[in-house]
Amino acid sequence: MSAPQDYVTRELASFHDDFAELIAIPSISTDPARAEDVQKAAGWVRRRMEQAGLDASIEQTDGHPLVVGRHDAGPDAPTLLVYAHYDVQPADPLGEWRSPPFELTREDGNFVARGAADDKAQVVLQIAAAEAALRSGGLPVSLVLLFEGEEEVGSPNLRRWVAEHRDELRVDHAVIADSMMFAPGRPSLIFGMRGMAYVEVDVRTGTHDLHSGQYGGAVPNPAHILSRIVASFHHPDGRVAVDGFYDEVLEVPEALRSGWAALGYDEAAFQRSAGGAALTGEPGWATHERLWVRPCLDVNGMISGYTGPGKKTVLPAVATAKVSCRLVPDQDPERIARLLEEHVRTRVPDGVEATVHRRQTNHPWRAAPEGPLYRAAAAALADVYGVEPVRVAHGGTLPIARDFSEILTPSVAVMGFALPGANMHAPNEWIAVEQLEKGMRSMVRLYEELAAGR
Amino acid sequence: MSAPQDYVTRELASFHDDFAELIAIPSISTDPARAEDVQKAAGWVRRRMEQAGLDASIEQTDGHPLVVGRHDAGPDAPTLLVYAHYDVQPADPLGEWRSPPFELTREDGNFVARGAADDKAQVVLQIAAAEAALRSGGLPVSLVLLFEGEEEVGSPNLRRWVAEHRDELRVDHAVIADSMMFAPGRPSLIFGMRGMAYVEVDVRTGTHDLHSGQYGGAVPNPAHILSRIVASFHHPDGRVAVDGFYDEVLEVPEALRSGWAALGYDEAAFQRSAGGAALTGEPGWATHERLWVRPCLDVNGMISGYTGPGKKTVLPAVATAKVSCRLVPDQDPERIARLLEEHVRTRVPDGVEATVHRRQTNHPWRAAPEGPLYRAAAAALADVYGVEPVRVAHGGTLPIARDFSEILTPSVAVMGFALPGANMHAPNEWIAVEQLEKGMRSMVRLYEELAAGR
Repeated sequence: MSAPQDYVTRELASFHDDFAELIAIPSISTDPARAEDVQKAAGWVRRRMEQAGLDASIEQTDGHPLVVGRHDAGPDAPTLLVYAHYDVQPADPLGEWRSPPFELTREDGNFVARGAADDKAQVVLQIAAAEAALRSGGLPVSLVLLFEGEEEVGSPNLRRWVAEHRDELRVDHAVIADSMMFAPGRPSLIFGMRGMAYVEVDVRTGTHDLHSGQYGGAVPNPAHILSRIVASFHHPDGRVAVDGFYDEVLEVPEALRSGWAALGYDEAAFQRSAGGAALTGEPGWATHERLWVRPCLDVNGMISGYTGPGKKTVLPAVATAKVSCRLVPDQDPERIARLLEEHVRTRVPDGVEATVHRRQTNHPWRAAPEGPLYRAAAAALADVYGVEPVRVAHGGTLPIARDFSEILTPSVAVMGFALPGANMHAPNEWIAVEQLEKGMRSMVRLYEELAAGR
Repeated sequence: MSAPQDYVTRELASFHDDFAELIAIPSISTDPARAEDVQKAAGWVRRRMEQAGLDASIEQTDGHPLVVGRHDAGPDAPTLLVYAHYDVQPADPLGEWRSPPFELTREDGNFVARGAADDKAQVVLQIAAAEAALRSGGLPVSLVLLFEGEEEVGSPNLRRWVAEHRDELRVDHAVIADSMMFAPGRPSLIFGMRGMAYVEVDVRTGTHDLHSGQYGGAVPNPAHILSRIVASFHHPDGRVAVDGFYDEVLEVPEALRSGWAALGYDEAAFQRSAGGAALTGEPGWATHERLWVRPCLDVNGMISGYTGPGKKTVLPAVATAKVSCRLVPDQDPERIARLLEEHVRTRVPDGVEATVHRRQTNHPWRAAPEGPLYRAAAAALADVYGVEPVRVAHGGTLPIARDFSEILTPSVAVMGFALPGANMHAPNEWIAVEQLEKGMRSMVRLYEELAAGR
């Protein structure tokens, strides 16, 4: 074993202590009452970076601060940026936790706590890997650890900060360390995330709700009209029926599909995690393909009239649906939002008012999963796990992946060490104990591989 | 003028004082904190009936009591039952009232207060009419005033009480005094009310909500399925598309339709009261016909996923709709509920669970608008208002109309003296001052006409 790997072996218990310290700070970014704890966590991260031998600073934003740790390996070394976040989701419902959420608890082979998987293990293991390299003879790449405190509130200030500091950042590669592996024992490199177009549709028939006996049958019902609109979003077979929706969707190379088919995607495990839901959708595509490279349209919320317990004979005046599309290259979210507006507009009867409000648009992101970063990361992960990592895409939306590739470098990969079913954002969030160590060892190897430029 | 009409003239101011007294008791039956006030109102009604010369009693039920006032005019006189209710709706939103809701306030030609139109004016004017007849030489019919304290909570105990007391009641005619006139200056006799079949439809795809990025496109969305079901309830032209829905609907006689067409139903006023909603529905029927003699199906409430402010990328596990049908003779509400269940059942995809819960079923009611009661009432109203009353139906559901006709007598009419737009159940409820007097005079005339048997 190399000197940095020996360092990891020797200091592992102390890194676990670090993890427990950071977990104990309830840095819930969504809760204004926890603003001081978020600051406290930022301070902890900065001090720990300095202790590791990095130049560390707290960078103020309009919201919670960023913490940046740097090491300069000279002009010939490649520069790697690693992104993670030190803020966490709220812990409620508290009653469902088996142990106190802000107390790192060992349960069989797992650490259980809020933030264990998302994303404090990454914060700790990235600092630990840098320390292991620095303290045992040098870190062979220039490193920028960019740790955010606002991921759980949608990273409102990150893109601007990155754009404003692009000149000082000048990185060759970026790793987004906020994700999970394909399966236990099977690491992954994620090279694509879907984009988003999120709109809200309001259908209004009059100024106020009416008595369904005194008006029923004589006036239109916005819940019926909205239902017709929502029903019209899909063909009966599951394809999205919005005109032009698929126009800009890139073809998926056969090689990619057959490679993925060989992975043995665990549909049964996926279905269990989905609460037993049927696995249906756009025909002609496997479950993992529908998630990774096909766009979709979903109602995220819908309401009209009386929705409390029991019955009320009200004829509603308004019906509302929140509708989001997950997008793949090269769908343009603004264009998709326009298509949705047009789809709704042409389906509203005379005398009824429908409005479509744009709530969010994000471009999809997809990298070419080749080049030095992917080669180095694959070699590093293969070395640590004894198996080649899978190169996959992901159904979620990660705006910073696109931001980094637009502003900093096209060489962006998403990787993480949590495991499927980690209860992120839910009670009893966990990460396997050994994943911290393997994460540190993977990062140390990644530095070496990147520096070697293989 | 007859002696009873003179009595009304003489005592009118004092009847207005009675009205103010009863209004001042906030007998809100839906509010458990107001239970004592409901009792207090019942006591007030009983004492006032006795003062009028009636035999009065408070009849306990499992809920709020009934108050019954009787006069026996001997075995040869016809017996008339008059139903009204002394309970009221809550007054909120309080901020929207122009005057204190439980203080009878005169505003131009109107009395404004909670319960002014619904239904305390009726309670007072019915007692006043009986007193006017009794104190000025005799009431020519046997009278049963049956005043309820639970109308606003759905009359849960009335049908049973009536059924248990059918032998002592033995009435020839029943007037339900809880309604409004066709238009100002145009009294009405209502001979039909729609029935109801109210169900709740739940569509469930899995055990819990999912992340729309991690699952969107791979699993079914219950909001889409529910929307398809709701959309399938109607043909595009507005007709209900549930198989067999219209099978038992009676034909509407041409004479009735042409009579109604001649009434000059004020569509513009109706549309204003509907908050400007378009007047659309089943083709081939005028607005008033769709309300009075055609059945309909309406979503009363619908909910799925996240419905708070802003956006949340949730893929819901459940979608729910409250659906009610207003029914006309001879539709059987239990059969319609079964048709709805069948309609939903055959439209649920494999692997998705849908359940239909029955929440309420009421038979429609329609009387033959002829015979002694309708003739006497028409003569009385024509005498007081100087114009023939219109004989119409109503879109709402009034279970007691059907109950009375099944248990007591087929000779049932609904009549009232409130005016359209009375803000029943809303702030600034009102009744025209002159309507109390005209109501008293109409009832006094009705006794005389009924006794004369014309």
